[in-house]
Amino acid sequence: MLGSTYGTFTTDPRRARVVACGEAPAPAVHGQAATADDLDVSGRPLYADVPDLDRFFRPESVAVIGASDADGRPNTGITRQLMDWAERCGARLHPVHPTRQSVFGTPCFPSVADLPEQVDLAVLLVSDPLPVIEELAESKVKFAVAFASGFAETGEEGAAAQARLAAAVERSGLRLLGPNTNLNAFEKFRDDLEGPAIALITQSGHQGRPVFTMQEIGVRLSHWAPTGNEADLETSDFISYFAERPEVGAIACYVEGLKDGRSFLLAADRAAQRGVPVVAVKVGRTETGARMAASHTGKLTGADTVVDAAMRQYGVIRVDGLDELQDTSALLARARPPRAEGVVVYSISGGTGAHFSDLATEAGLRLPALSDTKQAELHQWIPDYLNVANPVDNGGHPVGDWRGRKIIDAILDDPEVGVLICPITGPFPPMSDKLAQDLVDAAEQTDKLVCVVWGSPVGTEDAYRTTLLGSSRVATFRTFANCITAVRAYLDHHRFTTRYRSPFADAPRTASPSFRKAQALMRSGQQLSEHAAKQLLRAYGIRVPREQLVTSAAAAVRAAGLVGYPVVMKASGARLAHKSELGLVKVGLTSASQVRDAYRELTDIARYEGIALDGVLVCQMVERGVEMVVGVTQDELFGPTVTVGLGGVLVEVLRDVAVRVPPFGEDQALAMLSELRGRALLDGVRGAPPADVDALVEVVLRVQRMALELGDELAELDINPLMVLPRGQGAVALDALAVCR
Amino acid sequence: MLGSTYGTFTTDPRRARVVACGEAPAPAVHGQAATADDLDVSGRPLYADVPDLDRFFRPESVAVIGASDADGRPNTGITRQLMDWAERCGARLHPVHPTRQSVFGTPCFPSVADLPEQVDLAVLLVSDPLPVIEELAESKVKFAVAFASGFAETGEEGAAAQARLAAAVERSGLRLLGPNTNLNAFEKFRDDLEGPAIALITQSGHQGRPVFTMQEIGVRLSHWAPTGNEADLETSDFISYFAERPEVGAIACYVEGLKDGRSFLLAADRAAQRGVPVVAVKVGRTETGARMAASHTGKLTGADTVVDAAMRQYGVIRVDGLDELQDTSALLARARPPRAEGVVVYSISGGTGAHFSDLATEAGLRLPALSDTKQAELHQWIPDYLNVANPVDNGGHPVGDWRGRKIIDAILDDPEVGVLICPITGPFPPMSDKLAQDLVDAAEQTDKLVCVVWGSPVGTEDAYRTTLLGSSRVATFRTFANCITAVRAYLDHHRFTTRYRSPFADAPRTASPSFRKAQALMRSGQQLSEHAAKQLLRAYGIRVPREQLVTSAAAAVRAAGLVGYPVVMKASGARLAHKSELGLVKVGLTSASQVRDAYRELTDIARYEGIALDGVLVCQMVERGVEMVVGVTQDELFGPTVTVGLGGVLVEVLRDVAVRVPPFGEDQALAMLSELRGRALLDGVRGAPPADVDALVEVVLRVQRMALELGDELAELDINPLMVLPRGQGAVALDALAVCR
Repeated sequence: MLGSTYGTFTTDPRRARVVACGEAPAPAVHGQAATADDLDVSGRPLYADVPDLDRFFRPESVAVIGASDADGRPNTGITRQLMDWAERCGARLHPVHPTRQSVFGTPCFPSVADLPEQVDLAVLLVSDPLPVIEELAESKVKFAVAFASGFAETGEEGAAAQARLAAAVERSGLRLLGPNTNLNAFEKFRDDLEGPAIALITQSGHQGRPVFTMQEIGVRLSHWAPTGNEADLETSDFISYFAERPEVGAIACYVEGLKDGRSFLLAADRAAQRGVPVVAVKVGRTETGARMAASHTGKLTGADTVVDAAMRQYGVIRVDGLDELQDTSALLARARPPRAEGVVVYSISGGTGAHFSDLATEAGLRLPALSDTKQAELHQWIPDYLNVANPVDNGGHPVGDWRGRKIIDAILDDPEVGVLICPITGPFPPMSDKLAQDLVDAAEQTDKLVCVVWGSPVGTEDAYRTTLLGSSRVATFRTFANCITAVRAYLDHHRFTTRYRSPFADAPRTASPSFRKAQALMRSGQQLSEHAAKQLLRAYGIRVPREQLVTSAAAAVRAAGLVGYPVVMKASGARLAHKSELGLVKVGLTSASQVRDAYRELTDIARYEGIALDGVLVCQMVERGVEMVVGVTQDELFGPTVTVGLGGVLVEVLRDVAVRVPPFGEDQALAMLSELRGRALLDGVRGAPPADVDALVEVVLRVQRMALELGDELAELDINPLMVLPRGQGAVALDALAVCR
Repeated sequence: MLGSTYGTFTTDPRRARVVACGEAPAPAVHGQAATADDLDVSGRPLYADVPDLDRFFRPESVAVIGASDADGRPNTGITRQLMDWAERCGARLHPVHPTRQSVFGTPCFPSVADLPEQVDLAVLLVSDPLPVIEELAESKVKFAVAFASGFAETGEEGAAAQARLAAAVERSGLRLLGPNTNLNAFEKFRDDLEGPAIALITQSGHQGRPVFTMQEIGVRLSHWAPTGNEADLETSDFISYFAERPEVGAIACYVEGLKDGRSFLLAADRAAQRGVPVVAVKVGRTETGARMAASHTGKLTGADTVVDAAMRQYGVIRVDGLDELQDTSALLARARPPRAEGVVVYSISGGTGAHFSDLATEAGLRLPALSDTKQAELHQWIPDYLNVANPVDNGGHPVGDWRGRKIIDAILDDPEVGVLICPITGPFPPMSDKLAQDLVDAAEQTDKLVCVVWGSPVGTEDAYRTTLLGSSRVATFRTFANCITAVRAYLDHHRFTTRYRSPFADAPRTASPSFRKAQALMRSGQQLSEHAAKQLLRAYGIRVPREQLVTSAAAAVRAAGLVGYPVVMKASGARLAHKSELGLVKVGLTSASQVRDAYRELTDIARYEGIALDGVLVCQMVERGVEMVVGVTQDELFGPTVTVGLGGVLVEVLRDVAVRVPPFGEDQALAMLSELRGRALLDGVRGAPPADVDALVEVVLRVQRMALELGDELAELDINPLMVLPRGQGAVALDALAVCR
């Protein structure tokens, strides 16, 4: 369903290469070279292939194909910028042009073949990069960048041209950035800033500009990868590469669409294993956004709920605005791991403290009350009538003298405190200048996180521009919301990576014995009958009611005797959905005569409605449980996904479902249940007993296994309802719908 | 329940005054003086009392009680500031001090009685304002401001002192601002800015500072009311007053707690009628915030869902951050009413357009596709391969020359377009400087709204500070999110006020005939039996099942015959809840013998459980409908509120309920249903017929009437379930719980 890319791996040259590149310069995670053995049971890779991009970002020699110094030519400005950049990074630059002798005084070569040395990087300023790629391959150039636009972003014809380009790159052995990219990788970076840096990956130059510009307010940037249409190198490659670089403290991404879900997850997994935070804006919350993004870079956006879930599974921090991307990635790059999770809000105004605490608590930050001892200590310097439990309200005056610093140090000294946040909403120089300086000084002496919100709409004040932005130890924000978002991401990130275990480590590599049984049941292009779908479930050890498929009233009565009264009877046939609405389900039948009547009635209705039956199901009746749904759907980016939700009419009306991208473990299956708004139903409400959550989790994991093994052969699976019985009694799939590709 | 303030109106001197102040300087809405006739059936006022605060903000003469020019005294700085302010606004200032001859060269008077003239305003710098209030009253001073703190914000003792102060003010006839307030009302306002202004009301000085500081970036402010503890003048008074001032374009509020819910609603109603937008931060999203706010200004926060609903009913725009308060109130103050609701996003980057459109669409803005004609027009200046449907992507280059302005004008010229938003995420002077200037120039020539997002984190660029902030016609933001929030508020506000009709106009003033019947059923301090609660519903014309209360098995059989089989039987008694869990409900009884058995079983269980019954209910059985709940609860701020939600186990687990504060009309009752996540259940799912929504709305309105008439005598009402039958068949209250105060 939905044109999935899942399961087609081995026939797709692009992806096959990902696996076959044991010869790639960088070792895969844990030093294991990726080989055909490193595939999971779905045939997809288990390790990220990490390209060695050192010579891309720091080449020793560069060729500029189509270089120009003629007035008024667009390529002239670009050539100039590239020459400046090459000079800055100490690279030899060779212009290439069929007719020019020299460009800006540098000798020019008529073609790639004439270059005086094997170059690391070729920048293609030509409108059709395709023929050049083949020349570059012969000259063993490692990297190329193609600026030209007019490819997948323009529609079908462009997409075909891009496919030809990708195939040429594939054959060539070089790695390509672009097409439809720009100069951003070769911008002038500030080299006077210290500490961990942000590495930036964007699918749009303009959209990366604000993060890049943060250098002007003192935030270090190490790289910018403008990935454009990603005919070859993609966002995931840069994430994997940056995660290995010691100078990178955080990776900031602007993503419109992904090329492949699995490679993104493997890259995110790698970053998670190395504890490198990835912060991402991902367009596609709405249909409009998805459409626009697709027309901009020609890539798939995927179902947004699936993207969201996948990012959460791997600890990728998704934000909505570029301002959040800036503030969150800057904080995560620069702050040391938290010593404690407690957040203290400190302010010169009780109102500010109340307001900030309200929003912070709502966002899930924990503001522990300070101990009585600590409060007594603070009251040495703060009048008794002010609240210092947390938020700490100093009433204003103490910040003006020696007490200001004492208070800050005393708060930071508390072992429960990991983060101190000081919102300064209004600039009032007699107080705010001194307060800012005290915070900067205190931050130098601690390894705890100190945050300031500078709430003035002006932002030209000295305390802000010089004192606060001049410090790399204080994290400065302009709004409460961005501070709270960033601090939450910071605490979440460190909690996540501390506990993180790669799900790929435990992903199944070989098919289970269930797989052969299941395969025998699959019918290409068909929707299975309820009975067949249930056999599929049974093959994976998922309990279904005792039931028999019968084709006569007499057989129905015999079956009811074997199944045990009361029974449920349902018409069974391929492509039969909405049985209840059609009157094709009879419940609570308690006698042979009722069974006989029901058989007749069901077959009469089916005949009248023109529905072909393969028989009638006589099923054990199961009551008294919580109705859930568990299912599999195919996502265009991520392949099969597993969903779980509240069953019955609820799932239709409220869409109270959680989704995960395989592979995932028991922890994620449990986390799915926690995401349900109706989670409490499983705990037992109105005197109902708690449901067998363990059994539900087991079903989810078995369904995942099925999804992985059957791949996109299983276009859709819907167990609805799965009756989860009281604790210790298991779960039974009362109805199931399965669609084969 | 919950210590409601509702219904106690006539015995509360503070509130009685609100009604009795026909002699107040300002006329009430529509020129009607508020009299006892202007009360609704709950005894609460129907019109805001609008204090005339002209002489407070622009006094002709001012007395400063406790004035000082002694070095090192806190009052010295304050006195100096007040003298500067008085000079600026042309007021005569008279220092008052028992011993000083003069203060800063101005003659000083020993007491209020010695003042040379009747002053408009007295500023009290004394630690105990109480005795001074009486002196001021004798001298017929109109207004006083009390700076002293140590009142309700400090606990019980302080609250008692504040009550004494409030009583003295009450007797005096003057109006008091404070205590626990500050100099903010007397700050230096820029007088060189033109156009509609923001009037600011804050319960904390520090929290108002950012909005005030917006003057430095060109946004006009007209007033600042720092209301402090609100012993007398409260937020609502200032809203009502500002709504009448011609120079006020929007009212921005920072609210921690409200003194009285009704007065807030009346003020908001007045602003809505006059089309003046009110934008508010209201602390109390969480328990933490509510607690902090209470300890800061000693006021009630109310249940947050109720505050939220009340604000929405009256079009008050609630925002979370002070940055949103700034951006939204500035836009609403300055922008003219929209000519159309369509929003066009215009950018030099397809990525920016996609990203902004995604977030804008998610937030509910409507981005219509431009017509083919308009697109063709735009393609005169924009290359054909770029998308100009909306968002309009110009690809960058056209902004650099004469085409830039043409494009903007052509977009603004489209009759479907009301708002043009141009996000400039990265400053790139060759393009962004020209683009900013073109937008400013175009904005001067149109009455449509032009917005720019300046995404640079630096904010010192000329294009931003000079070009964009220098224009009062372009609304400039720093983040996508704040722009979207503000534009949505702008469109919502104008849509709301265009259609607004005050619910107070239709609020009932006299009790309905139902009231007497209902009163007779009320039992002070008790929970009514199910049967009595249903009679209460019947008194208000709400349908209940045919039922009889019986006290013998024989009577039960007779009742069943009258009611009609099948019947439901339930134990009935005061304080009896959770009947189902206790086994005290029997459904689907179809024969006399079943009824007899059920009677015996119910009374046996009750005896065994020690539950006193007033009998057993024999009820008509009603199936096949949508189970809803309709109820009344008491809010500490707003008095009785009406809720409606999904019934059954759903309401407990999902809390899918909507709430409104009476009085409200049928439109709001319908809007409540739209807010329910499970709304679709009423439309009929899985083949169920659509439910009788009209009947449901009628029940909600009848319950509202009951809530208004019974006031806080009805501590709680819970109809659960209300069975809403298929369309045309009505709704039946199957069970009800009522608690009398």
